[in-house]
Amino acid sequence: MHFTSEQRLDDGVLEREFTLGELGEIPGTLWTPASAAPVPLILMAHNNGLPKREPRLVARARYSAVRGYAVATIDASGCGDRPRTTAEEQARADLRRAMRAGEPVDDIFESMVGPLVEKAVPDWWTTLDALLSLPGIGGPVGYSGWTALGIRLAVNEPRIAAAGLFAGGYVPQAQREEARRVTVPLLFLLQWDDEGNPRQRALDLFDAFGSKEKTLHANLGGHTGTPWFEAEDGNRFFDRHLK
Amino acid sequence: MHFTSEQRLDDGVLEREFTLGELGEIPGTLWTPASAAPVPLILMAHNNGLPKREPRLVARARYSAVRGYAVATIDASGCGDRPRTTAEEQARADLRRAMRAGEPVDDIFESMVGPLVEKAVPDWWTTLDALLSLPGIGGPVGYSGWTALGIRLAVNEPRIAAAGLFAGGYVPQAQREEARRVTVPLLFLLQWDDEGNPRQRALDLFDAFGSKEKTLHANLGGHTGTPWFEAEDGNRFFDRHLK
Repeated sequence: MHFTSEQRLDDGVLEREFTLGELGEIPGTLWTPASAAPVPLILMAHNNGLPKREPRLVARARYSAVRGYAVATIDASGCGDRPRTTAEEQARADLRRAMRAGEPVDDIFESMVGPLVEKAVPDWWTTLDALLSLPGIGGPVGYSGWTALGIRLAVNEPRIAAAGLFAGGYVPQAQREEARRVTVPLLFLLQWDDEGNPRQRALDLFDAFGSKEKTLHANLGGHTGTPWFEAEDGNRFFDRHLK
Repeated sequence: MHFTSEQRLDDGVLEREFTLGELGEIPGTLWTPASAAPVPLILMAHNNGLPKREPRLVARARYSAVRGYAVATIDASGCGDRPRTTAEEQARADLRRAMRAGEPVDDIFESMVGPLVEKAVPDWWTTLDALLSLPGIGGPVGYSGWTALGIRLAVNEPRIAAAGLFAGGYVPQAQREEARRVTVPLLFLLQWDDEGNPRQRALDLFDAFGSKEKTLHANLGGHTGTPWFEAEDGNRFFDRHLK
């Protein structure tokens, strides 16, 4: 793990940019609280459409860091600002076109996002191992964000103790099948009118999770309309399970 | 309003029993915080199956009172410990039998709960007027609990500024139709496996509300399995809208 920049923000949070991987190909950001005592870690994963600098994501990370968490995000393979193959660009364009035209998107989505999840996973393992070796970052570990990746990580990584998942309408078939094997406490966040995530599928996915403690929060509005108080609720969810 | 008993609880909350109505036929309880400054009011309405002394209801009321609210509950006409007519007792027995047998309950439910809501409304108006005339109780007013009654009050009472509603699976036809006229911010609480409240109907009702700000919280488990953290979430919902 190589830190490339560091700044102390006005809320006392230390924000550090880093790179990881054999070629330094994984860019990430780590926010840690002013306190020197070991703190729990939250992995904040965004999906392919957003870069890790997206302001709402940064605001959420800082909100949690102020409240005693180390928060980390990366641009995993194929996500955020990372380079894409021609095939990936083509699939993305096909998906946008089909959604605008109101055509079925399942096959395109599956062929695009299925491999994206698979390729993101090793980058996140690398990141998790590196973060937990840092002084000041203890455990347990929470996951927050992209639903499909969260399922994939939660069923394979016992260090993940709780997960907040967002927008589970379109999830690759493999992760829909894995959902019943997820057993950690869940907070499942859904936008009621999310144009890109069919409501009924998200509700079916919530139903499928194997977790004994799972909570659904749904709010009116489209994909990007999640109210800010859900960031506060998400933090309290982690407080219950990571502290 | 006639206070019949008063005790200062160990958390500083003042708990007062009262009676209201021409014959003193409406029994209620009022919890107020130690502070003398005027505080917002929460009407905590339980439905017919529970008396106002139910421990979880009392615990929620005290939780909110400690945090700066006046909280009041009553046994409205036909609810809690209030006397029931022979016809009401019969309808109740019919409903229990039909539910146990897995038979359709819509008609029984409608004939039983429709009139129950109508009869409860004037008792709640009497209570609201009496409470708001007390020193130390200001506004605005929040509503918490029984969904059908909450709809009925929220569409007819501009002093109600926010409502937390529970278990909206079976709601009389009149209130299902009124739901789209509800415009106050809502927190709609649903138990995912509530044996007495079909999930899809509750989701349809959530969808129908006219409120621009509405949030659904769903948790795994049956009717009485709501986790305690929902009391905390409910209080924060009122903090956002009543303070």
